[in-house]
Amino acid sequence: MANIKEYIAEHENRFHEDLYGLVRIPSISAQSEHKADMQRAAEYLRDHLLSLGVQEAEVMPSEGNPIVFGHYKQPGATKTILVYGHYDVMPVEPLELWESQPFEPEIRDGRIYARGANDDKGQIMIQLKGFETAKALGLVGVNVKFIFEGEEEIGSGSLSPFCRKHKDLLAADVILVSDTTMLSEETPSITAGLRGLSYWQVEVTGPNRDLHSGHFGGAVANPINELCKIIAQIVDDKGRITVPGFYDKVLPLSDEERAMIRKAPFSEEAYCRALDIRETQGEEGYITLERNSCRPSFDVCGIWGGYQGEGAKTVLPSKAYAKLSCRLVANQDHEEISRLMKEYIEQIAPKSVHVKVTPMHGGAGYYCPLDLPAYQAAARAVEKAYGVAPLAIRSGGSIPIIAAFEEILGLKTVLMGFGLEEDAIHSPNESFSVGVFRKGVEAVAEFYRLFN
Amino acid sequence: MANIKEYIAEHENRFHEDLYGLVRIPSISAQSEHKADMQRAAEYLRDHLLSLGVQEAEVMPSEGNPIVFGHYKQPGATKTILVYGHYDVMPVEPLELWESQPFEPEIRDGRIYARGANDDKGQIMIQLKGFETAKALGLVGVNVKFIFEGEEEIGSGSLSPFCRKHKDLLAADVILVSDTTMLSEETPSITAGLRGLSYWQVEVTGPNRDLHSGHFGGAVANPINELCKIIAQIVDDKGRITVPGFYDKVLPLSDEERAMIRKAPFSEEAYCRALDIRETQGEEGYITLERNSCRPSFDVCGIWGGYQGEGAKTVLPSKAYAKLSCRLVANQDHEEISRLMKEYIEQIAPKSVHVKVTPMHGGAGYYCPLDLPAYQAAARAVEKAYGVAPLAIRSGGSIPIIAAFEEILGLKTVLMGFGLEEDAIHSPNESFSVGVFRKGVEAVAEFYRLFN
Repeated sequence: MANIKEYIAEHENRFHEDLYGLVRIPSISAQSEHKADMQRAAEYLRDHLLSLGVQEAEVMPSEGNPIVFGHYKQPGATKTILVYGHYDVMPVEPLELWESQPFEPEIRDGRIYARGANDDKGQIMIQLKGFETAKALGLVGVNVKFIFEGEEEIGSGSLSPFCRKHKDLLAADVILVSDTTMLSEETPSITAGLRGLSYWQVEVTGPNRDLHSGHFGGAVANPINELCKIIAQIVDDKGRITVPGFYDKVLPLSDEERAMIRKAPFSEEAYCRALDIRETQGEEGYITLERNSCRPSFDVCGIWGGYQGEGAKTVLPSKAYAKLSCRLVANQDHEEISRLMKEYIEQIAPKSVHVKVTPMHGGAGYYCPLDLPAYQAAARAVEKAYGVAPLAIRSGGSIPIIAAFEEILGLKTVLMGFGLEEDAIHSPNESFSVGVFRKGVEAVAEFYRLFN
Repeated sequence: MANIKEYIAEHENRFHEDLYGLVRIPSISAQSEHKADMQRAAEYLRDHLLSLGVQEAEVMPSEGNPIVFGHYKQPGATKTILVYGHYDVMPVEPLELWESQPFEPEIRDGRIYARGANDDKGQIMIQLKGFETAKALGLVGVNVKFIFEGEEEIGSGSLSPFCRKHKDLLAADVILVSDTTMLSEETPSITAGLRGLSYWQVEVTGPNRDLHSGHFGGAVANPINELCKIIAQIVDDKGRITVPGFYDKVLPLSDEERAMIRKAPFSEEAYCRALDIRETQGEEGYITLERNSCRPSFDVCGIWGGYQGEGAKTVLPSKAYAKLSCRLVANQDHEEISRLMKEYIEQIAPKSVHVKVTPMHGGAGYYCPLDLPAYQAAARAVEKAYGVAPLAIRSGGSIPIIAAFEEILGLKTVLMGFGLEEDAIHSPNESFSVGVFRKGVEAVAEFYRLFN
């Protein structure tokens, strides 16, 4: 019988084709015109699970986009793992910055370019092909359940109700997820922590119509000016968020963890060079690797108002809008933070404008103990594929559902992710390395060999 | 022979049709796709001048959009007036707020609705029909030159070079312009002062691509956050602009002028109600009518960056943009202010982002002495049409070319404007009262009777 590497080499082209089929479906959850694509993507995954010999697979309704559930029953197995992924992807705007069509995958210089090539369709396919490989080689010793949702990029709103409703169906020993990044190909890592998220849309209304800035400017509050003042007040000059109570539940970083963070290979200079910035910027008293993963942050994700076209229109606009977000850390309550921010903005807004703050989605942070048997198996599997033992790190990103899984299903999650920073997820020209994809499949197959 | 009122009543429907023909041409100077419309509008005005018996009329090239010049020679006349107007209009976005098509004029409730119905096509047509009426009745005792440009809404960039080149052609005794507003139909007024303008586009660049706000948020400066901080710093909590040197050349308001301003009929409550705002806001120590006409102001006319679509995209964007403007008062040097603002923004921007400030257009403020014979004639003409003597007021708007006329041609301008606040110029559903149009034509005809 072939070994894992040989099986993968023999089937690699087909693995890519199976990924392309999924990537070609533009399943953008944030844009309602892609509703039908969500269903198509779900059906594609259901059919694919069945083709792999998963005995039960179906597209199940949820309050929002459909959820794919599969159940592979291994004779004699006593443990069950639950594999989670998401088939929805981020919007692709601005389209003009893409070098190839976002939904027509193309390999250039050893990388697959497409929206979803990594996040999360590429990583879902690593899980499926790792399972296929392990199964073909007789290495699977556990039952495997699969759950793929279509709302991760908009907050996984329907997944928690689904989990509550189908607790028995989803019963397992541990959850396995590939939706995170590694430090680098040379320094593989497994994510042991995630940040939470709160997100708001703010609408500031000044006068009831756009005004001539000459006839009214100076006497009537401009909603853009006022929105900017509000945003500017949310972070102080030490990089601290000023919302009262915001840091109350944040746990201080231990000296031990701060020491470990300083062991991760990281060059501030290379980081700045890669992003073409002169210097980083953040909360006083913390280094970049702490700021982007262990500490909360505040970012304006979008802003708009007034005239954005060519030339110089002199207008005092009626409306201004912004999309605001905070990354939270474990132990912060995202619903409480959503409320605190809303109250704070309403309080600091001047009486001369009307402000409407709409909390959108959110999720709690997460932390995984490193002595968990599934974590240990994942670490050894990654070491086998990469030749180096992975570091345990915290990620600055959010997968709100990971905290929800813990709360609802009582299960810990192992975040066995294979992304790299250069994959540019959420950006134009998202891509995924063919070599990383291959190693990912190998690591997942090894995980099955080791965990049973 | 008929009197002025009779002539107007007899020809009013045709006057409207002549205006509609001009309004139907979408001559938006800020948008380059309307290039051909600029030429069409200019040709329409040339043809119209010729049809009125103006002996010479032509469409002349400029560095930008064409300029219409006409010359009516009155036998025996010793004085020449130069009538100025602009045939370009503002953009119409947001289109969905228009109740009828912006370039298909429609009369509802005694008002003509269309982009340009007032600003400035409607007011140009008041000048032309007032001239026609006076000429038909044998009341014109002066030579009349006409100049209509197509770049007023984008800063009149080509008109100054044109004036310098054609100084002799444009030689006159005084300039007459209808492009301003009155306090109300009950309290007619003539504008004796105008604010100047400086306008900038600001581009803030953070990282070289849009980033995942989870993986980078907190460590990398967000260009939207930084742009908001910059904008928030430009006005202090007393409503004063913080740019060093900004107020150096501003002349203080005399007690006499402040007393006169307080005589203008004005209700703060009605003003707020009309705009649907709870309160006005502006520079400490000044009232609304001073803030919106006699004091400088700072407005963000547009802002954009990041994700503006449906849903909640978590992105740390690469770029953010804003269009900034200042209204200036007489004696401030707009080029100096443009430079001071640019330097100030570059100085306060943090090193973590790149900031590019592009001055766009600008113009100086203006003041007209009330004992000027042409001002006196205009005041008496308005009194004749309205039955009330007009107040001399300052307008908060800018007509940069009025200051340039003074500098280049050595001529004072009488701003005999007929707009009203409710005309909503620059906004969706711009309109012009049929009755005001009629009174305007009458006042211009009276002006010719009085000034010779």
